[in-house]
Amino acid sequence: MLLKNNTEKITSVLKSDNVLTSLEERYCYAQDSTNTRRHSVLPEAVVFAETAEDVQKILKSANRCKIPVVCRGAGTNMVGACTPEKGGIILNFSKMNKILDFNAENMTVRVQPGVIVGDLKKFVEKRGLFYPPDPSNMRVSTIGGSIAQSSGGPMSFKYGTTKDYVLNLTVVLADGTLMKLGAGTIKDAVGYHLNQLIIGSEGTLAVVVEAELKLIPKPEASRVIMSYFDTLEDAVSGVNNIIAERIFPATIDFMDNNSITTVERFYPCGLLVEKEAMLLVTIDGFDSSMDEQENRVRRAMQESGASSIVTAVTEAEKEAVWTARRASFAATAKLAPDVVSDDIIVPRDKLAKMIRECKNICDKYSLSVCMVGHAGDGNIHPQIALNLEDDRQFKNYISAKSEMYELAVSLGGTISAEHGVGYEKIPYLEKTVDKEAVNYMRSIKKIFDPNNILNPGKIFKV
Amino acid sequence: MLLKNNTEKITSVLKSDNVLTSLEERYCYAQDSTNTRRHSVLPEAVVFAETAEDVQKILKSANRCKIPVVCRGAGTNMVGACTPEKGGIILNFSKMNKILDFNAENMTVRVQPGVIVGDLKKFVEKRGLFYPPDPSNMRVSTIGGSIAQSSGGPMSFKYGTTKDYVLNLTVVLADGTLMKLGAGTIKDAVGYHLNQLIIGSEGTLAVVVEAELKLIPKPEASRVIMSYFDTLEDAVSGVNNIIAERIFPATIDFMDNNSITTVERFYPCGLLVEKEAMLLVTIDGFDSSMDEQENRVRRAMQESGASSIVTAVTEAEKEAVWTARRASFAATAKLAPDVVSDDIIVPRDKLAKMIRECKNICDKYSLSVCMVGHAGDGNIHPQIALNLEDDRQFKNYISAKSEMYELAVSLGGTISAEHGVGYEKIPYLEKTVDKEAVNYMRSIKKIFDPNNILNPGKIFKV
Repeated sequence: MLLKNNTEKITSVLKSDNVLTSLEERYCYAQDSTNTRRHSVLPEAVVFAETAEDVQKILKSANRCKIPVVCRGAGTNMVGACTPEKGGIILNFSKMNKILDFNAENMTVRVQPGVIVGDLKKFVEKRGLFYPPDPSNMRVSTIGGSIAQSSGGPMSFKYGTTKDYVLNLTVVLADGTLMKLGAGTIKDAVGYHLNQLIIGSEGTLAVVVEAELKLIPKPEASRVIMSYFDTLEDAVSGVNNIIAERIFPATIDFMDNNSITTVERFYPCGLLVEKEAMLLVTIDGFDSSMDEQENRVRRAMQESGASSIVTAVTEAEKEAVWTARRASFAATAKLAPDVVSDDIIVPRDKLAKMIRECKNICDKYSLSVCMVGHAGDGNIHPQIALNLEDDRQFKNYISAKSEMYELAVSLGGTISAEHGVGYEKIPYLEKTVDKEAVNYMRSIKKIFDPNNILNPGKIFKV
Repeated sequence: MLLKNNTEKITSVLKSDNVLTSLEERYCYAQDSTNTRRHSVLPEAVVFAETAEDVQKILKSANRCKIPVVCRGAGTNMVGACTPEKGGIILNFSKMNKILDFNAENMTVRVQPGVIVGDLKKFVEKRGLFYPPDPSNMRVSTIGGSIAQSSGGPMSFKYGTTKDYVLNLTVVLADGTLMKLGAGTIKDAVGYHLNQLIIGSEGTLAVVVEAELKLIPKPEASRVIMSYFDTLEDAVSGVNNIIAERIFPATIDFMDNNSITTVERFYPCGLLVEKEAMLLVTIDGFDSSMDEQENRVRRAMQESGASSIVTAVTEAEKEAVWTARRASFAATAKLAPDVVSDDIIVPRDKLAKMIRECKNICDKYSLSVCMVGHAGDGNIHPQIALNLEDDRQFKNYISAKSEMYELAVSLGGTISAEHGVGYEKIPYLEKTVDKEAVNYMRSIKKIFDPNNILNPGKIFKV
């Protein structure tokens, strides 16, 4: 009751149509895209900020009353990074969705956190520049979410992740203070990289209200080369041969045999179901280099025993090839009532072993798994089809997941490459991150958010 | 005396030939490459670590006795980042200089902090891979120093700085604890980016004893295109035209008229002394793209009024062109007993104005300035020739420097792009960084180093 009264007081500073408190709305915002959650905590209110001042007002007063505040862009997170674990206020950024400034000469763009990643990408591409991060949900996910999670995507292999494209951030601190971090320049060697600390902190340290992003010249041409392999090991050797050919592809994505057969079963498009792996290699750069790059990739693939190599040149051809890869999630979803997509990463020389062992683990627990991912990075997304309502299957899934994480760590990898920790991966955090480092994270959290109001219950137990 | 006794006790854990305490040695290590320093504090001892355990022992005991510890690679820093402002122990890493592991498949290399950057670059290039950061002192400077300062170089425009190539760090904390930060993988979305906090912290938070670095495929070809412009504005417009041509050059360096004429005066090599600016554009990538890239750069330059465009294709030609650019510092040094190289950065659309105004400021104070830098980044290195022993000139230099920093900040830039803050730029820190952010830096420093033993007196006043 106290919580509710306080929340009413806090949200009263906003226009009434920016505050939602109906039970239906609160239910909607109790979840994000994480479907393994078996409990649900309702927020007391959902509010829409229109300005940085709105955010400051809400935080200042929430901090005084120790009411949790959870930021939300499009809610696409898959580890529960934007669910209200402790109730409180959902701070929705969908009305702070403006591109504030675009500077072609400086190759920068200044945005509000609610801007949709895909929209931003199109906006700058029309102007000859390029914002490379390409999370698979980019048609709906926001820049604020990208910054909170340091989102990657298939192009991370060549172009890095969100953290590599943030020049400066304007953030609101837990007590409502506005703070500017970083400089408006390509390089900055003045003091600690506090903006890098905020990026990937999943909304637990400060609330981003504005970001200036770095852009690069847009590569003028690209092609996608699809090839099949009899073994996972051959596919990984294909990746190594590409590097040996001095090619730096924009993407090297893969599908395992289960993904290939499942996609072909539900969305027939001529995939070769007898093959153990498929690679999707995107080359980009100058038009004048396309033929040579393609020839070298084909040679690298052939040397590794690839067959049925097909190159997509037109936009329609490229789209068709990527559609098969992207259809994997939807196809897997048809195998059972639910599908859960996970996210693990290992050094690339352990990739084939990791994929095989993940399959064995899932077999052991009678779980169907389709594996896709970013072979260049060693990043696997195991997509597990199951019935989450079935207690036995759910228990098996939890066991399988735990074993896959342990395996990733034992192979020199880690438990999340792109999705973050949220609340889902907290139990596994100290198995992958140095305990001492987690303690330092806790201490830093205490400096920034002494009352633990910013997305409490995420990343680690405070 | 107490300090001395304590230092003797602390250093006694090392082999005696790893401890220097003679007055001569202590004098040598009282300075780094910063020549504007008018005072000098001697360290009590200089010690050479051979292992991480050595570093742990020294720190554990130094922390107990509250004795400062200042890490040192090659001592090339120009803002006093590795001078012993409060005495104590210099921790020299020149004996921890091994490349521990190279993994071509994962495109990673694991190194000790004393490895020389240029040696590392050659080592990986021989194996077909590329470590892009190229600080101008790379023939002597170390990876440890690069990490402490997040070093850049001409290639930062396309390839980023050191922070973009560090996967994980093993550090020793102030109390001697060993801590591992980051993962051994290309991406890592598990918890706060503590490794990014250590990078660029100038040895004030923790001591790096090992680093795993990310490598990329080595571009197979490059050319350097030199061109001259009648005005600075034309040169900057040339940079914009290159980007409009969808070229992403590896470097876009510049020399101003004073640099050109000063180099030509002391090292005649046919530079055009009547021109206001020269650009050095490096294109890289596939052999098959070189002609087209070169043609486009030439077209972009010509559209901006460039003349005397020359392309260096062979290694010898490229070396000759870069020698002119690099000779600027040595040539400027011949104008007066001393030369001081500074480091400021502005958004590129303010670059021409910044260069002109810096020249005006130096003229006002009767100081000779040659300006070179990285035009793509908007990064200027004003090289000021003067007699540092002359009190009037020194005072003028301090005034000019202060005005240049204020100007950079007023134009949306900052006071250091590559050199760091050290102790030299502390007075200007709060003019460029949000005061609140500096307070957070101080709080973080207190968590990591409660006794303020790690490089005390640097970046900010504690």
